[in-house]
Amino acid sequence: MHGGGYQDLGFARLDVDREARTGDPEVVYGAGKTVPQALALVAALRAAHPDRPALVTRAAPELLAALREAYPDQLTADDEARCAAAGPLPASVGTVCVVAAGTSDGPVAAEAALTARVAGAAVTRVTDVGVAGIHRLLAARDALDAADCLVVVAGMDGALPSAVGGLTGVPLVAVPTSVGYGASFGGVAALLTMLNSCAPGVVVVNIDNGFGAGLFAARVARRTGRPA
Amino acid sequence: MHGGGYQDLGFARLDVDREARTGDPEVVYGAGKTVPQALALVAALRAAHPDRPALVTRAAPELLAALREAYPDQLTADDEARCAAAGPLPASVGTVCVVAAGTSDGPVAAEAALTARVAGAAVTRVTDVGVAGIHRLLAARDALDAADCLVVVAGMDGALPSAVGGLTGVPLVAVPTSVGYGASFGGVAALLTMLNSCAPGVVVVNIDNGFGAGLFAARVARRTGRPA
Amino acid sequence: MHGGGYQDLGFARLDVDREARTGDPEVVYGAGKTVPQALALVAALRAAHPDRPALVTRAAPELLAALREAYPDQLTADDEARCAAAGPLPASVGTVCVVAAGTSDGPVAAEAALTARVAGAAVTRVTDVGVAGIHRLLAARDALDAADCLVVVAGMDGALPSAVGGLTGVPLVAVPTSVGYGASFGGVAALLTMLNSCAPGVVVVNIDNGFGAGLFAARVARRTGRPA
Amino acid sequence: MHGGGYQDLGFARLDVDREARTGDPEVVYGAGKTVPQALALVAALRAAHPDRPALVTRAAPELLAALREAYPDQLTADDEARCAAAGPLPASVGTVCVVAAGTSDGPVAAEAALTARVAGAAVTRVTDVGVAGIHRLLAARDALDAADCLVVVAGMDGALPSAVGGLTGVPLVAVPTSVGYGASFGGVAALLTMLNSCAPGVVVVNIDNGFGAGLFAARVARRTGRPA
Amino acid sequence: MHGGGYQDLGFARLDVDREARTGDPEVVYGAGKTVPQALALVAALRAAHPDRPALVTRAAPELLAALREAYPDQLTADDEARCAAAGPLPASVGTVCVVAAGTSDGPVAAEAALTARVAGAAVTRVTDVGVAGIHRLLAARDALDAADCLVVVAGMDGALPSAVGGLTGVPLVAVPTSVGYGASFGGVAALLTMLNSCAPGVVVVNIDNGFGAGLFAARVARRTGRPA
Amino acid sequence: MHGGGYQDLGFARLDVDREARTGDPEVVYGAGKTVPQALALVAALRAAHPDRPALVTRAAPELLAALREAYPDQLTADDEARCAAAGPLPASVGTVCVVAAGTSDGPVAAEAALTARVAGAAVTRVTDVGVAGIHRLLAARDALDAADCLVVVAGMDGALPSAVGGLTGVPLVAVPTSVGYGASFGGVAALLTMLNSCAPGVVVVNIDNGFGAGLFAARVARRTGRPA
Amino acid sequence: MHGGGYQDLGFARLDVDREARTGDPEVVYGAGKTVPQALALVAALRAAHPDRPALVTRAAPELLAALREAYPDQLTADDEARCAAAGPLPASVGTVCVVAAGTSDGPVAAEAALTARVAGAAVTRVTDVGVAGIHRLLAARDALDAADCLVVVAGMDGALPSAVGGLTGVPLVAVPTSVGYGASFGGVAALLTMLNSCAPGVVVVNIDNGFGAGLFAARVARRTGRPA
Amino acid sequence: MHGGGYQDLGFARLDVDREARTGDPEVVYGAGKTVPQALALVAALRAAHPDRPALVTRAAPELLAALREAYPDQLTADDEARCAAAGPLPASVGTVCVVAAGTSDGPVAAEAALTARVAGAAVTRVTDVGVAGIHRLLAARDALDAADCLVVVAGMDGALPSAVGGLTGVPLVAVPTSVGYGASFGGVAALLTMLNSCAPGVVVVNIDNGFGAGLFAARVARRTGRPA
Repeated sequence: MHGGGYQDLGFARLDVDREARTGDPEVVYGAGKTVPQALALVAALRAAHPDRPALVTRAAPELLAALREAYPDQLTADDEARCAAAGPLPASVGTVCVVAAGTSDGPVAAEAALTARVAGAAVTRVTDVGVAGIHRLLAARDALDAADCLVVVAGMDGALPSAVGGLTGVPLVAVPTSVGYGASFGGVAALLTMLNSCAPGVVVVNIDNGFGAGLFAARVARRTGRPA
Repeated sequence: MHGGGYQDLGFARLDVDREARTGDPEVVYGAGKTVPQALALVAALRAAHPDRPALVTRAAPELLAALREAYPDQLTADDEARCAAAGPLPASVGTVCVVAAGTSDGPVAAEAALTARVAGAAVTRVTDVGVAGIHRLLAARDALDAADCLVVVAGMDGALPSAVGGLTGVPLVAVPTSVGYGASFGGVAALLTMLNSCAPGVVVVNIDNGFGAGLFAARVARRTGRPA
Repeated sequence: MHGGGYQDLGFARLDVDREARTGDPEVVYGAGKTVPQALALVAALRAAHPDRPALVTRAAPELLAALREAYPDQLTADDEARCAAAGPLPASVGTVCVVAAGTSDGPVAAEAALTARVAGAAVTRVTDVGVAGIHRLLAARDALDAADCLVVVAGMDGALPSAVGGLTGVPLVAVPTSVGYGASFGGVAALLTMLNSCAPGVVVVNIDNGFGAGLFAARVARRTGRPA
Repeated sequence: MHGGGYQDLGFARLDVDREARTGDPEVVYGAGKTVPQALALVAALRAAHPDRPALVTRAAPELLAALREAYPDQLTADDEARCAAAGPLPASVGTVCVVAAGTSDGPVAAEAALTARVAGAAVTRVTDVGVAGIHRLLAARDALDAADCLVVVAGMDGALPSAVGGLTGVPLVAVPTSVGYGASFGGVAALLTMLNSCAPGVVVVNIDNGFGAGLFAARVARRTGRPA
Repeated sequence: MHGGGYQDLGFARLDVDREARTGDPEVVYGAGKTVPQALALVAALRAAHPDRPALVTRAAPELLAALREAYPDQLTADDEARCAAAGPLPASVGTVCVVAAGTSDGPVAAEAALTARVAGAAVTRVTDVGVAGIHRLLAARDALDAADCLVVVAGMDGALPSAVGGLTGVPLVAVPTSVGYGASFGGVAALLTMLNSCAPGVVVVNIDNGFGAGLFAARVARRTGRPA
Repeated sequence: MHGGGYQDLGFARLDVDREARTGDPEVVYGAGKTVPQALALVAALRAAHPDRPALVTRAAPELLAALREAYPDQLTADDEARCAAAGPLPASVGTVCVVAAGTSDGPVAAEAALTARVAGAAVTRVTDVGVAGIHRLLAARDALDAADCLVVVAGMDGALPSAVGGLTGVPLVAVPTSVGYGASFGGVAALLTMLNSCAPGVVVVNIDNGFGAGLFAARVARRTGRPA
Repeated sequence: MHGGGYQDLGFARLDVDREARTGDPEVVYGAGKTVPQALALVAALRAAHPDRPALVTRAAPELLAALREAYPDQLTADDEARCAAAGPLPASVGTVCVVAAGTSDGPVAAEAALTARVAGAAVTRVTDVGVAGIHRLLAARDALDAADCLVVVAGMDGALPSAVGGLTGVPLVAVPTSVGYGASFGGVAALLTMLNSCAPGVVVVNIDNGFGAGLFAARVARRTGRPA
Repeated sequence: MHGGGYQDLGFARLDVDREARTGDPEVVYGAGKTVPQALALVAALRAAHPDRPALVTRAAPELLAALREAYPDQLTADDEARCAAAGPLPASVGTVCVVAAGTSDGPVAAEAALTARVAGAAVTRVTDVGVAGIHRLLAARDALDAADCLVVVAGMDGALPSAVGGLTGVPLVAVPTSVGYGASFGGVAALLTMLNSCAPGVVVVNIDNGFGAGLFAARVARRTGRPA
């Protein structure tokens, strides 16, 4: 039984033992936290585990700026993704390819990509390849086949994972986004499309959950044990 | 104001004046009617308009058999579609192409096809071309471009209309089917996919409504005035 | 296979080859784009295809003002529709009639009308003809019958397409709007009404999707080949 | 405080005091009851109140047959409505007009009509007047205006009450029916249409609740105090 | 057929003929209109029908202030109801009693009450009588029985109409309000409660639709022909 | 850590250690099990814990008959509840009062009552006391106040717990039932009503979950330590 | 019958008689009330019942500040809970343990805890013990077993009550929170999880309803009659 | 471009080229097919690819019997899973561990397990380890950590994947089942729980989709390249 494994910061009990269990970095969910609260959490994680990065997601621009100031030499940040990792990135094992349907799906795709990299995989990107322009997708087929796990991000009709899943047998994680209007219901339409994909072996995460998809994909890629 | 225009059969007031308004044949919805009731409705329509067909939809096998017996020389029937038309078919004007994703979508596609033919259009068919096997779809591209209106039928993820709509600018009517399970919700997932299609200019009808799609497509095809 | 067909702008890959496939103008979706981003997209499209217009939809007033300044002699803009087209309008082929139930449905109807015109059809308008005042609708019957395709826009109960569809056999595209309150659920009630229309041959687009309806209707109208 | 007012039958406590409070007859909901149970309830009500009828709704054919045998001279029954009233009908005060969109809405309309009559109103009927055939509805306008309360029954798109409500200012109770398929969701689409009616002053009851609508309408009609 | 019956204001076609059809006053829905637009509509209605009032609903405080200035001697306004009527009120015929469950239901109840009065009925009020405090409700029983029609307004669990409907046989219109939180879904929970009321003869209007309930109730009350 | 605590029957691992953790009897959910499977489970539980009863819920009539034969002297069964307990009942501590709105709610109320008794509480019953007949409810007030925990069962509008909760401060568990039709959605309407109860301190269990309510109520009653 | 029992403040009728019926303190729901309105309600309750506290929930910071100023010596306030109680707290009878899954569930847990204390129970807290870190939960087992009633608060997947319910037989009230995103639907996902808990005897309150859970739990704890 | 790759059987076009693209076996979905149709499909696949198995899912008992007769020496069948594979099984690469919450989740878990084995992975099973009995789950921790991919199957509250995901960092595919009642909505409650899991890196498939989960997990396991 895990005797201790966490540290009390007053406003949160911090699980400093996670990677021993899961092999993943610690994560600070930035939304709803003040900049000082988030910085304190990152500092505690950095102190507990100097050898691996702390990932901050859903970070407002002020928080990203504060992190850049606090960790000038050690920060890997992505403004579109609203994410940053403080500390040394791990070596890459296996490859994750992040595919996005439209430019508005960019932030979610970027969150997935940075997460996967921080969690230990190499990352490639394919962008702007919606189902309504199939020739673009076919042109990207080699990049798809070269990956150990795909993350396919799409809003509106959410049809892209079905098309990608018909082209390749690489494990595929679909991410519905809240991009759309009317009867898209904030991403529910895309979510249902993906859950009902006619391509076999498509799995799905929650709406806009680029983090979860990137983390899962990195876990799959790391299993291959192949340095990327 | 339309003075009369209908005939009282006791169990239904029959609108014998429809084509003057819409250019379409009369239709008898077979579900929930006894065989004698349906036959009486068809007979009344045949008598009122000997020069054009009466279409029966959602016909049980017994009703189809009874119609074959009653109109041995004049019946155009399709068992998969559960439809039949009694009376002479009109000459074809324009072409409707009915595309179906999977074999289980067959009955709805067949209903659309027979309806479109009875409503005055020529009909072509493309079958078994789901999004998860894009190469089959690309091979059918000439048939798509040759049509005046497309009817694209798909269940499960309902992604096919998006892919077809990205390949061609022919007017496209999408028909979600109730084929699927789990979170397909009897066709609702496919319906939402189609309403949110990322391909521009896709329109949608109700779940399993092959009749409505076929009728609409024939109206579009007939507008071209081009004998098929 | 389409060899190239797109151009990389850095923040978006632009499909400059669309009309070759679909016969429609290029479209820039204005929502969520900065004014400079939108202007850059329009300029690229104008340069690639000087002979046909680029349509901007969901444009904020600032964007409309910037477009008016950038294309003083070539802009067809509609403030209510929040749309503008830069470049020469095509000659009209066929006629689209846009029908709106109430004054609050005006913006969606205007978007449909401008889109249809830019996409190559002549456009007529019938306004303020709700089901609850049937005499107004009956008075508009000639305009309905004269069109090659109808776009019928309605919020709240969404009942207007059923009434229009009972009066004429012209192909009819129904557009639910998000106008309403309480159990209208942002247009879902009207959407369901239209999907279940008791008038045959009614097709539906997504809530508030005037653009999609106008584009589809213009495609139908153009098929007639009849200069309007 | 009502001292007693009910009678214990073992399997149900019977409220024999209802009309003193509401002016309505007693009602036995037939569904889920055995024929002997239903007969016992009717007998108890007849004994407690020989001067007014007991209404049985949702009665299976066997129950209707048993009631006909038990009350050969006093039964007012309607097979389509699946209802019967045992005992003398009250004199009529005021008039209820029951309007139905299609023949499949017949059972619900019949239930409303018999209920209204048993609850003390005169009843007129208008049938088969859907929104998609407006000329039939306009022809029935005098019957609408002559009533003290309207019950308007419709399935599928549920649009009829909006059209009727635009023609007359008579109080109007809308009844959605479960007639329809696909995205009609067993009457929910029609229910939402009616709740969002663009005609002012439309009120709604539950799906298929002809009884509730008929009872309410009779209460309104009786308020006029005018013998019909 | 109604020859004319409306007047074109540029931004709206005004139906100046409504009362001839329905017996109700004209109504201006204030939400989404500018103060000048609303004032122009009221002025046109006042000019067309000097003998009856024009009702403005969902009026912002600025609009109410402007109306008070424009019609200093003829305005009946209610700030809680966000409504005002310009012009002489009709004599009262029949009585409507408006019952509200909690103080937060006040605005909807006030809208119903003012509407009913402007539409020609006398109005009484019973407030703060929720189901969770039944003794207050029982104390109001005489007021309930004295009315010709009840309007019962409730949010949260929406249970009040069932309790009131068990106490009296007066026609009862239930109004769900959007008061509540969590799984009240903006009034949907109360709406469903009311549609499923175990009290017979309860009818329902849309969420927060005090206007519709008040108008309907006044129509019922006027039918009695009894001066209040 | 619980070393063992379960027993492997081949088709199920049986948790024979539950009461040590929870103080409740073991339960066999009868639905979907064959009679021999259910009997084997009961026998194993009887053998492991001869001093306390095994409760079988959702038992078909055949299973109840088989249990009566297998445990002729030790079975406490209730046909309406579709439940039976084999083995000696515990002494009663505290009192649970089960209140039901209508006769159709009987099976769920009976399941709650038998469960509460088997789980160690005394049980009283109040039946047929719907909100629409408030005087019956007021007459039962003493029984309500005498209990340590109430279980209030209601379908349709689910309003009864609000009314009961306004009369007494005894802890109240509300149970929605699937009794109803149309927009009751199989109990969802009643569930929402109860979750939004305007009476404070009402808690809710799943639709038709008489077992869960009875078990919870017995746990509360047992806490009092007062022999009933 | 309760003769009086309430007091008219003009803007609200105050039920000053509640505790005689329920044993609970009076409550002022702060949301939507002005600071003066809320203060007046508290003052009236304090005057009517000087011997017991008045609880204010959903109080904005300004209201909490005003209460601290008005009742400097008698206020028990909790900023995270947004609640305060004016007046002497009752002696504690029984113990309520409030368990929270994550730090974002803190405000709802704090509301439950303060409510339970003001309503007469002793309160213990266990925080930050999500299902995804089971070892933390197991470490808290003694605190769980020592309570008379548990309140378990969780957002996102809402899985915590199932895990807690498997560890102990103490009565357990689950509170879903609106913490989450995407398909959490503002707490509906957690609510459904809790209603379907595989642990027996879990009851549920509305989303974010810490007050209701705390009040219910205190009622259960007080029943034990054991001073804490 | 894939030149041919499929074979026309008359009632279906068979994709005989799938493994070249995906590395998976061919699959025949048994539901809705006659025994002869299913046998013909299997025979065609066996003939086209004698070196790898054809998997039949959702097979009725008659179909399983027919397959046993047709392939007496080569069939791997599982009655609980309703699945069978005809032909030689591939060597195992990597390990999939299938975890099931309750015995009623058995068929879906068995389908996942057989699919994963046929698709080339070794398979281990952990059964009957619900969240409400956490000690069973902790006892299985070694089996979890030894796998390359987990498939976690649960109905009702769907909470098991959150608990498992908190114990291990192995990639985890969650499968909601339709086991449950009331507000479980045929598996939707469990689906939402899983999509909102508070454990990071959980991915989800459609309700009851054991096949999809097993196939995906095998793909992940095979990527490791480690013979099992």
